Order: sequence, then C-alpha cells, then structure tokens
Amino acid sequence: MPRYRLAIEYDGTPFVGWQIQSAGTSVQGALETAILKLTGSPAGIRGAGRTDAGVHARGQVAHFDIEKEWPASRLRDGINFYLKPQPIVVIDCAEVPGNFDARFSATARHYLYRILARRSPPALDRNRVWWVPRKLDGEAMRDAASALVGRHDFTTFRAAQCQAKSPLRTLDRFDVSLDGEEIRITASARSFLHNQVRSMVGSLKLVGDGKWTRDDLRQALEARNRTACGPVAPASGLYLMAVDYGPSATTD
Amino acid sequence: MPRYRLAIEYDGTPFVGWQIQSAGTSVQGALETAILKLTGSPAGIRGAGRTDAGVHARGQVAHFDIEKEWPASRLRDGINFYLKPQPIVVIDCAEVPGNFDARFSATARHYLYRILARRSPPALDRNRVWWVPRKLDGEAMRDAASALVGRHDFTTFRAAQCQAKSPLRTLDRFDVSLDGEEIRITASARSFLHNQVRSMVGSLKLVGDGKWTRDDLRQALEARNRTACGPVAPASGLYLMAVDYGPSATTD
Repeated sequence: MPRYRLAIEYDGTPFVGWQIQSAGTSVQGALETAILKLTGSPAGIRGAGRTDAGVHARGQVAHFDIEKEWPASRLRDGINFYLKPQPIVVIDCAEVPGNFDARFSATARHYLYRILARRSPPALDRNRVWWVPRKLDGEAMRDAASALVGRHDFTTFRAAQCQAKSPLRTLDRFDVSLDGEEIRITASARSFLHNQVRSMVGSLKLVGDGKWTRDDLRQALEARNRTACGPVAPASGLYLMAVDYGPSATTD
Repeated sequence: MPRYRLAIEYDGTPFVGWQIQSAGTSVQGALETAILKLTGSPAGIRGAGRTDAGVHARGQVAHFDIEKEWPASRLRDGINFYLKPQPIVVIDCAEVPGNFDARFSATARHYLYRILARRSPPALDRNRVWWVPRKLDGEAMRDAASALVGRHDFTTFRAAQCQAKSPLRTLDRFDVSLDGEEIRITASARSFLHNQVRSMVGSLKLVGDGKWTRDDLRQALEARNRTACGPVAPASGLYLMAVDYGPSATTD
C-alpha cells in the first residue's frame, strides 16, 4: 500500500488537540474523516507531534497508507476540500517509502511560542498568543533561556501524565527574540516530553517577571522535580512550526 | 474640554468598516458606545483613516473630547472593558492639545498588505491575508513596485466614490518583501485616496502573475483613468499599521 506524508497547518483553538478523544473534534479525527470521504476507505493517520487542545501548527507532519496510488497534488486538494470549513489545511503532500514514520523518523521538531506582553489584550492575535498584561524583561529571558539548552533530565518540565520512558532529552535550541511587545521563543529538539515547551516557557516567563533569575531556572532544571516548575504556559501561544526528517524520508 | 488620542488595534472582519453606517456595527460606533458607557456622556470620535469593511488595524489613531479630565490609563482600560468581547482594543491613550486632529494633523500613514501565494488556503491566517492559490513572481513585484513611488495623479488607483478634491498624492514608500509563501507590501504616504492601497496592490499582483510588466504598471498610472486599474485587492489582507504626527501633537 502506498504511504503518503502530509504537512498540515491548523488553528488549534476549536479542537480537543491532535489526538482522537472520546468526545470533541480532534485534528487527527477531522483528517481521517476527510480522507475517508475522499478515498472511500478508512485510513489511520499518525502525527509527528501530539499537540494539545488549543495548540497550533504551521507544519505538523503526518503519514497514512491508502489502498490505491493517488497523484499527491490530488490527495492534497481533495483532503482540503473535505476539511472545509474547519481551520485545518494540508499544505504539502508527498508519497514516501513504506518505512517512513511521521513520529519515529523525525530527526527534529521545531516549536514557536508567542507572548504578547502589554497592558491591552490582543485584538488581531486573540487565541494566537499568551497575553501577559504587563511588560516583561525580554532581555533577562533571552539571557536565561540558554540555561536549559543541552542534554538533561527534564523531569521538572514534564507533565505528570507524560508517557515517555525516559525524561532525558537534548534541547538543541531555546532562543528568545524580541519584536516590540511580542516575545518569541523558539525551541528545537529531536523530541520533547509532554508539555515540555509550555513548562519551560512558563518558568522562563518568571524570569521576565523578575521573580526568577537565570540561576533559579537552572536550579529548577537540576531539581528534577515537577514541583520546581513554574506555572505551565497556556496552549494558545504554542505553534508546531516544522518537523525535520533525514534525506531518505521522501521519494519525490 | 480635554482631548484624548487613542491608538487602536482591531480585526476588521466582523465590522462594516471604521465609519458609522446606517446598518451594521462599525469600529467608530463600537468605540463611541464604549466611551458613552464608561463616561456617561456621548463623544464623537474621529479616526485618521476610514478603513473599509474587513480592513484591519494595528495602529489606527483617533481623537475625541470629553467633559472632565481622566487619567489616560483609566480611559484606556475602561474603554477596553466596555469594548469586550468585540475584537477592538485601545493600545494607547494620551491627552493631546486641543488643536490635535487625528485626521488632519497626521503627517504619514503606514499600511501593510499581506498576500499568501500558495495552492492551499490559509488555516491560521483566514481573513488576515489575500489568498492567491498559486505562486506569484515576488521578485518581479518587488522590482515593479517602485514605478508608483513619488508624487503623481493617482486617478487610476482611486475608487469611483473617492471624495478627495485632488487625485494628487505623494507615495513615499511602496515596498515588497518576501517571506516564504507570503508577500508583504508596505505603503506609506501623508494621505491616500479611497481604495488606493488595494488598487495598487491589485495591479501589482498582475505583475506577480506575469500578466503585467513594470512598464504596464507605470502606463496604468500614467493613464490617469480608473479603467486602467487591475482588480482591487480584497480587504482581508490590508492593515493600517501606524499613523505619524509631528512632535507637537502630544502633551505627554
């Protein structure tokens, strides 16, 4: 059976998250329904990142198998047709080798977290940022962020319900850039623990508030204890931007 | 009576435009209602740019007079309270001299126009961009845009219902920048004719389609004839970003 890889953009606001749940509409479920309507046969779809409710994607990646071969562009357009009017779109589709796995073949995942730090709430970016109604010290956040980069036991920044066997992860990038009232945090790693980015951002924001220093952030990491984590940042500011694969992961 | 200047951000999608109309909710009307609820007295509010239905603002400016003096931060927060849940927010408020006029004191207006040029529709930027479902030649658009910069008779790029006495305007900036599948066009001038930015962008997009050359764009300008204009670009991609005033326009 031919296997296809999709790159997917979505507004996470109206969904219960990527993964199919017992109640509510999931991104995965909406995609499987669209594929079924288009092709007439059910297909299980697997994503690279199981984003939580309210988390957005500019470049989620998923794969699925279907019985007959389709031109990739017709699959993309057909799935998009049946997804309407939901805010999910397939932005790319390609046939891939049968051993490609959106989750396990990924070599890097890239997330963006957006904080709007100003007194007035967002009008244009409602549900697209974490609104913090005051100034934050973005420079201090930028200096502190590097304290988390590298290979560490990230138990502190891991949700209680995280199912990963090991809390060890290598954080390749955790950068802060400042754009007026907006603070943009970029996080890259081969893989992340459940809620890791939002947990790290929530703690880093305490540095922006002047409540924590870079050393406090480092000590929170070294505590390897969930209770040392700051409040988890809300889903609305988080975007799965891209997922990388090795050069053998595509046939086109 | 003290006069206040507001800087305002809004999502233009649900509104009939800036200006109060006989039917539908306008941004101006929503602001006047919020000011009335807060202060108990009616205040007419005047904007720097009368944006059309669906056009957004990151930095619209307006002024109004009220009977008693208010701390500017209390006005800002109070108006924002009464604007909820509408996607309009006051991002800045300041007392200004009585001769300040949001419309006539403006020395420059800055607009951004966003085009998303790709096969798949927008999910995260629905109603926030002009979706053109194919690649455009952004480089050609960038080269051609300068053909419109300078002092010209912009009759070609002026809506039939435009009420300005003269079609002469000085376009200080008309720049194209490319960001992946997004084409961003920045337009700056002391003032614009009605629909001027959307008319210029609609014509420039014909260059991106390969249907027009830079010379065609220049000839359309020189025709000084509305029928020489390309199709007007949709409202959803347009943002009033900022309005400039001289140094005497503020008291704080």
